[in-house]
Amino acid sequence: MAALQAGEDHEVLKVSSRSNPNSVAGAMAGVIRSAGTVEVQVVGAGALNQAVKALAIARGYVASTGIDLVCVPTFADIEIDGERRTAIRLCIEDRDHRMPDPAYVGPDGTVVIDVRD
Amino acid sequence: MAALQAGEDHEVLKVSSRSNPNSVAGAMAGVIRSAGTVEVQVVGAGALNQAVKALAIARGYVASTGIDLVCVPTFADIEIDGERRTAIRLCIEDRDHRMPDPAYVGPDGTVVIDVRD
Repeated sequence: MAALQAGEDHEVLKVSSRSNPNSVAGAMAGVIRSAGTVEVQVVGAGALNQAVKALAIARGYVASTGIDLVCVPTFADIEIDGERRTAIRLCIEDRDHRMPDPAYVGPDGTVVIDVRD
Repeated sequence: MAALQAGEDHEVLKVSSRSNPNSVAGAMAGVIRSAGTVEVQVVGAGALNQAVKALAIARGYVASTGIDLVCVPTFADIEIDGERRTAIRLCIEDRDHRMPDPAYVGPDGTVVIDVRD
């Protein structure tokens, strides 16, 4: 579905045209919950489509915690198999850079309490 | 390229897969400059791709006026030729809902002063 890897100071979620938007939305919400921000990298229209659909779904997942997810797209030059490609990076975070409330209501209605700190 | 029509309380920019991202970015910047917000409606991955590229370009156009453009995607049920389709609407505005400075520096470096009011 979507591969997660640690970026310089944030998580980067790589989404493809075969990614399931609901699954990606769950991953987005999870990273937002723990890190406050997530960066999504896509190459191609199909992958971007799945990522934006996932964001629209993830907005609903985190809205109950007071998070208003917004997205900032930028271009990125990347190399895939030795070939230079232009990717789009979507920086996804709360509009006011707020961190989510640790008492998190999950997409299925269950309340998950983050007790890591 | 992109058709502009007045929505309930804002401008709606319809973008297709054949729209030129630079042209759409110019239109976006123009509407942001005058109305502070613009809604983009797309159907299909190709159209969304052009719209998101345009947004990445438009961010640069308005950054010099202190505007930090962000995007909020939502789903919308629309009807095209009697057939129900799911569109994606991108609500594009300044992160803090600020209105642009009327002294606007255009993409070509010229300063355009809005004297309409």
